[in-house]
Amino acid sequence: MNKPVRVTITGAAGQIGYQLAFRIASGQMLGVNQPIILQLLEITPALSALNGVSMELEDCAFPTLKKIIATDDANEAFDQCDFGFLVGAMPRGPGMERSDLLEANAKIFTHQGLAINNNANKNVKILVVGNPANTNALIASSNAPDIDPKNFTAMTRLDHNRAKSYLAKKLGVQSNEIQNMIIWGNHSATQYPDISHVTCDDQRVLDAVSLEWIESDFIPTVQQRGAEIIKARGASSAASAASAAIDHMRDWSLGTSDKSWVSMAVPSDGSYGISPGIIFSFPVICKDGNFEIVKDLKINEFSKDRILITESELREERSAIESLL
Amino acid sequence: MNKPVRVTITGAAGQIGYQLAFRIASGQMLGVNQPIILQLLEITPALSALNGVSMELEDCAFPTLKKIIATDDANEAFDQCDFGFLVGAMPRGPGMERSDLLEANAKIFTHQGLAINNNANKNVKILVVGNPANTNALIASSNAPDIDPKNFTAMTRLDHNRAKSYLAKKLGVQSNEIQNMIIWGNHSATQYPDISHVTCDDQRVLDAVSLEWIESDFIPTVQQRGAEIIKARGASSAASAASAAIDHMRDWSLGTSDKSWVSMAVPSDGSYGISPGIIFSFPVICKDGNFEIVKDLKINEFSKDRILITESELREERSAIESLL
Repeated sequence: MNKPVRVTITGAAGQIGYQLAFRIASGQMLGVNQPIILQLLEITPALSALNGVSMELEDCAFPTLKKIIATDDANEAFDQCDFGFLVGAMPRGPGMERSDLLEANAKIFTHQGLAINNNANKNVKILVVGNPANTNALIASSNAPDIDPKNFTAMTRLDHNRAKSYLAKKLGVQSNEIQNMIIWGNHSATQYPDISHVTCDDQRVLDAVSLEWIESDFIPTVQQRGAEIIKARGASSAASAASAAIDHMRDWSLGTSDKSWVSMAVPSDGSYGISPGIIFSFPVICKDGNFEIVKDLKINEFSKDRILITESELREERSAIESLL
Repeated sequence: MNKPVRVTITGAAGQIGYQLAFRIASGQMLGVNQPIILQLLEITPALSALNGVSMELEDCAFPTLKKIIATDDANEAFDQCDFGFLVGAMPRGPGMERSDLLEANAKIFTHQGLAINNNANKNVKILVVGNPANTNALIASSNAPDIDPKNFTAMTRLDHNRAKSYLAKKLGVQSNEIQNMIIWGNHSATQYPDISHVTCDDQRVLDAVSLEWIESDFIPTVQQRGAEIIKARGASSAASAASAAIDHMRDWSLGTSDKSWVSMAVPSDGSYGISPGIIFSFPVICKDGNFEIVKDLKINEFSKDRILITESELREERSAIESLL
């Protein structure tokens, strides 16, 4: 057995947290030979519910789960943290403008960035799931000056998986046969799911579908999938979000497959002309616990326009919270 | 890759189903080399929510998940079924007597027993999770005359896991060091968690704890754990119930470890003087897809009394629905 790693989940009594904690504790992120210490954070009013989650985690008798810490203190939750899932965020309430939402969340992620800086392992891997995820990750990172900004990422893996599964359905194949999907940009309705580089069975799929289908069916379906699920379930995607979060962290830690890159929102290094520093979803390859942005892909005009739109939204989000960076 | 197996989940849009479906689809029940076809059943008013669950399952892009069927027709849900999780049940409403509850559920499980009989694989493995689980399993089995009654079981694995984890906490060890726990009887407050045969690190634990602790702390804590979790979470155990259901079905299919038996509620063969035919939780060992009740354990007087109480409750439940058998 390896030395235990410490996994922090914020908003751990929420719907996504309730899925995530059990799958991680059961060994689905790092394998059944990697002992886990779960460090669960909630706001004070949710501590009783969080205690219930801890009791259920104990009741699973998972061999991989060594210890559970349940707390409303971010410093305790991020103490020696190796992997941080930042799931808890302020949801958009009635009458709330987007700028109000950005600001309300900025406070939460400023506080958590500081707690990470002061308590976490310096090699910590952070994944922000709570929306607006990309900009929340930027805020947390800015408040953690002692930690490499590359350790702060945001989740577009759910969009990536959704795009794969929707395209697979269209082509009548299995999702895992779809290679090299890309989600560019923001985890929002401006995201650009790009199939230009996708292969299936070593064949380019771009020739198998029409531009019209891509534009008027594929792209809006992927962009609006979250809303469709809320309409059907009466609740937002929780299980699939948790599953994507595990995929993201597992690939980042253990490496991507030889066959395909994945999409992760990471600090832009200026690749593809994206404003440096914003947390932007790129195609990435992971190896030895690090990710590298896939460089020098040919970007057609159709894609260029859409990448610009989502980049521009992320630059605006950064402006809106600039005073906090 | 093996030939896909068909896994049916009833009540699949409910809280337990929402945990169970994703963990099974991800390969946690039978391993990542076993393709799965999920057959999800719900009542008609929950079909929209079930559709949302199916969408999320697609969005996970699990390599093991070959197909999803979502339906309100039990015949379709159990078509060629290899593994059936009977989770959906009528909960106890305000003013409802226990006999009303038994009858309301008897209708559901009569119908599903028939659907299993007429559609499922003859080697189907059925696990009833929906309460009153033991008697629901008996009803389903009675209505499936073409299927061996041994293929119908009910879940006490959650109680088993809870008992292990609570005892482990007391002894300051990990849950997986606790071997040979037994839950006897009914999945209800009369269940008897028995530590007489438990070993930890090859030592009997009975000498390490007091009879007083067993009687006034351990037994009532395990029996009332579900109620405690509802109090803390504001909702009943879903994730830990789903986890136990996977443990039950995995061990039944792939075999128990050499080190320890597990608890399963199975048709009594008269062992330990238990009325033949009732679905009673015993210690069992599983191998080659079959379970065997562990025989000839020495039962002390303390245990005998408690086993009688839970057996008598199950005999009463059987009497209450006798006309339907």
